[in-house]
Amino acid sequence: MIASDITPTLTELGRQTRHAAQQLATLSTADRNAALEAIATALEAATPEILAANQADCDAAERDGIAKPLYARLKLGASKLQGAIAGVRDVAKLADPVGHVQIHRELDTGLVLKRITCPLGVLGIIFEARPDALIQITSLAIKSGNGVILKGGSEALRSCQTLVEVIHRALETTAVNPDAVQLLTTRAEIRSLLTLDDYVDLIIPRGSNEFVRYIQANTRIPVLGHADGICHLYLDAAADLEMAIAIAVDAKTHYPAACNAIETLLVHDAIAPQILPPLAAALQAQGVELRGDALTQAIIPIIPATDADWATEYSDLILSIKVVDSVTAAIDHINTYGSKHTDAIVTQDEAIARQFQQNVDAAGVFHNCSTRFADGFRYGFGAEVGISTAQMPPRGPVGLEGLITYKYEVCGQGHIAATYTGENAKPFTHQDLGE
Amino acid sequence: MIASDITPTLTELGRQTRHAAQQLATLSTADRNAALEAIATALEAATPEILAANQADCDAAERDGIAKPLYARLKLGASKLQGAIAGVRDVAKLADPVGHVQIHRELDTGLVLKRITCPLGVLGIIFEARPDALIQITSLAIKSGNGVILKGGSEALRSCQTLVEVIHRALETTAVNPDAVQLLTTRAEIRSLLTLDDYVDLIIPRGSNEFVRYIQANTRIPVLGHADGICHLYLDAAADLEMAIAIAVDAKTHYPAACNAIETLLVHDAIAPQILPPLAAALQAQGVELRGDALTQAIIPIIPATDADWATEYSDLILSIKVVDSVTAAIDHINTYGSKHTDAIVTQDEAIARQFQQNVDAAGVFHNCSTRFADGFRYGFGAEVGISTAQMPPRGPVGLEGLITYKYEVCGQGHIAATYTGENAKPFTHQDLGE
Repeated sequence: MIASDITPTLTELGRQTRHAAQQLATLSTADRNAALEAIATALEAATPEILAANQADCDAAERDGIAKPLYARLKLGASKLQGAIAGVRDVAKLADPVGHVQIHRELDTGLVLKRITCPLGVLGIIFEARPDALIQITSLAIKSGNGVILKGGSEALRSCQTLVEVIHRALETTAVNPDAVQLLTTRAEIRSLLTLDDYVDLIIPRGSNEFVRYIQANTRIPVLGHADGICHLYLDAAADLEMAIAIAVDAKTHYPAACNAIETLLVHDAIAPQILPPLAAALQAQGVELRGDALTQAIIPIIPATDADWATEYSDLILSIKVVDSVTAAIDHINTYGSKHTDAIVTQDEAIARQFQQNVDAAGVFHNCSTRFADGFRYGFGAEVGISTAQMPPRGPVGLEGLITYKYEVCGQGHIAATYTGENAKPFTHQDLGE
Repeated sequence: MIASDITPTLTELGRQTRHAAQQLATLSTADRNAALEAIATALEAATPEILAANQADCDAAERDGIAKPLYARLKLGASKLQGAIAGVRDVAKLADPVGHVQIHRELDTGLVLKRITCPLGVLGIIFEARPDALIQITSLAIKSGNGVILKGGSEALRSCQTLVEVIHRALETTAVNPDAVQLLTTRAEIRSLLTLDDYVDLIIPRGSNEFVRYIQANTRIPVLGHADGICHLYLDAAADLEMAIAIAVDAKTHYPAACNAIETLLVHDAIAPQILPPLAAALQAQGVELRGDALTQAIIPIIPATDADWATEYSDLILSIKVVDSVTAAIDHINTYGSKHTDAIVTQDEAIARQFQQNVDAAGVFHNCSTRFADGFRYGFGAEVGISTAQMPPRGPVGLEGLITYKYEVCGQGHIAATYTGENAKPFTHQDLGE
């Protein structure tokens, strides 16, 4: 009997997942990669079954009058499914994040310390309508040796159930206990999931800002992610004007719904009269609505920006503009209104750039490039688990590294602490050893 | 006027500290080390003033009938103060944790990513009666470029006030803004401190298990530390008996109040009849009270251990003993009752040791040595900020590394994301560069 056939209480499900995850954590790289290949093969074989379930979800969603963008995310055509399956094999090819020796140190003769990376345990992932996200997240969890409890959007229920059934069938032929992958099917279970601190080690919410804030406020389990992405671009007095316009247009319009798109443009007053007219024209040509403070409005005829604008993530083709009199004023504005996601400066003055990058408190602080590069794939991590705006690591775009922790192993030959204390205390050698 | 002379609201104080910390974060290694030397010199010069304030605290505490161990921690004699001042200079000598380039990668020609360590921001430290802890914590904060809001035990109020006054006077002669170090003086302010998520980035509580649990349950700010330290020692069937006894005695009796002392001994039934009598004698000779399960009681005449014992940190000369029939049973017991602090196995069987170290889920899993080695200084970190039993890093004994985070800096030459997407997408080079 596979786990999805029974309906244990959530605590019991947590216990099962924890148990399966403990076994998964000790499997070899080859075993985990073989499980990923089994999943990819099974998903290929079950393509008609998966697409039929997804079509049923889509039909029901259409009857319910679902919004178009949500429908597009829900819809899993053959090519999107193929892409997701290729993604599983890509994850298998990534370097194993487990078992790295981060510290290897002789404390004394015959007494050796190692700090070794290991899986976190069990992940709780709450995502929206996209069924392909389930495939990606499950791959990342198995690759990193973690169990995973999944909760997808209710619109995608049939798709998610079918996908998890196929994944369970695949895992039964591998070293990975199928209980390591679990699916929650009701919205009420989210609240219960958030209380399972004994069985869930990390929650990763993927959804609206309000949803992420709700999760953050209602659990003691660590949450990886971010609510707002209020990113800024500051055009300094020493900016190359052509570069500044190109970066501003890209950072705003390339994908306005992305968290790394800019919401506010800060412009030094020395270049404002010169740059604002062509910049406004370029942005407006892309359909961007501009809102400005009084100084900006004195130069270009746009609607006013209020204090609320500085604290708003539009996620849309809207940009607020403020004229500032120094890099310091720009830094102060960003440290006041920013969400510590990604902020950028355009300047040819290296000292000003240095000042900006040192003083802006954000996960990403860029110079002469678009904020849109803040992304795990673009950083070369091979995967992105989420983007964190927390102060503590993991911060910024987080790859597989965010799904692992470490433990300290000390091996001795009967060593006791009394030897190293008191009058005749033996000193430690503290000598770093090679890998 | 220095900060301790005024009584701003706690939010205003948080803002001040944040502001001073932002300045501190950009200072050079030399500036931060110079500030530490200024503090050490000032503390030396103010020794009579400090000792007088401490004597007043001690006199008041004696009148109030303070417990002896607490009095000992409160009392700051000349030699203890000298030791603390030497500690400030030791911290100055540590490697700078700020400014390390952890990732240096070309994303494309002229587009370079760096991940660089930087200070967290502002630390909130709540400690007990020990005034020397204030000196140590302030040094670690300044070394790592962080502001710090301190709250000491009420018994030590005069000592703490004098110390912070001396530290402020010293900092006024340095590049470090004295506002970076703040002292709270009333117990009511602890509750307010816990709500200051906008101004405090990390809370480090030092106190009783109940106190740490209270802090963890009442703040959304990350907390570094641990409540319980329920450490285990498992004596395997293949244990060297003499080594097993020596390690058990050390792990229990070397410093029973320490969090890395063991509370429960697990003994394989194959060696229990042989090892328990001499082991009990050795422990009882050190004044240890033994409590055992039925199988243990059948071998040695000790009082019974109940289920509550397995979940108790005695912090005292008490040890519970359980006989188990396998390493798996030992692992299960530890993963059920342990606090993920430090657990150890004694065995000559490398495969069993490997199984134990892989499967026990704790920050430290040791083989053939005492659990007492779980300590930042013994690990060679040069300092210990706390010991974390959380699942996410930083985990285990935490050195200066626990007081820093990182940011991603990307520097380009006008690079925009549109170049790397769509039909004619340019590929990234993702080439790691040297330091």
